[in-house]
Amino acid sequence: MPTQDQMKQALQAYIDGFAAGDAAAVAALFADDAVVEDPVGNPPISGRAAIEEFYTNAVGAGSKLVLEAPIRGSHGNAAAMAFTVEVPEMGLRIRVIDVMTFNEDGKIVAMRAHWGPDDVEQS
Amino acid sequence: MPTQDQMKQALQAYIDGFAAGDAAAVAALFADDAVVEDPVGNPPISGRAAIEEFYTNAVGAGSKLVLEAPIRGSHGNAAAMAFTVEVPEMGLRIRVIDVMTFNEDGKIVAMRAHWGPDDVEQS
Repeated sequence: MPTQDQMKQALQAYIDGFAAGDAAAVAALFADDAVVEDPVGNPPISGRAAIEEFYTNAVGAGSKLVLEAPIRGSHGNAAAMAFTVEVPEMGLRIRVIDVMTFNEDGKIVAMRAHWGPDDVEQS
Repeated sequence: MPTQDQMKQALQAYIDGFAAGDAAAVAALFADDAVVEDPVGNPPISGRAAIEEFYTNAVGAGSKLVLEAPIRGSHGNAAAMAFTVEVPEMGLRIRVIDVMTFNEDGKIVAMRAHWGPDDVEQS
């Protein structure tokens, strides 16, 4: 099982990847067979190629993530964080809580992004 | 599917139940066959009777929940929130992210609390 530090560092690296505009660095945090559900309730995206395309679009829109509270670990293989996404290209701010689940190698196997229609506002 | 408002009001009622010291009110938010995993990675607690006992202990310890950011919904049947738990009886503060999943009746069927050993500090 990955350590608390490994999981929290991966979530911080996810934020840092957006800050650097580096979609490949974000996608590299995921396992080959990972699943991304963003937002929860929409059809999931499966596999590294589709995930890299998803993050290429997200990073390409200039999205930046701002933590609202310290990253949380767990007593298992999951970690979570509350943040806002600033999407300047669309003039939007989205309030999100991501939960990421990890494999033995410390790669993300599942990402679930909790945000609803009411969690989006004009920035 | 419950509305965004229903789910967010249930999470707020969960916080309010702790504030009022009312474990029965907290447990009443859950479906009869609900499962609570607190923290994620520990064996889950199943069923309303066990859940009410769990919250009787938590509320009895004087625990209070302080939101760190607005409650999030989703595009599905889940909502999430980041908060700190103050446990005066134990002199502890715990940083948590809860994810709750709902049934058609707006009752919580699953609660997963994300906090690790490093998310606990002396208060």
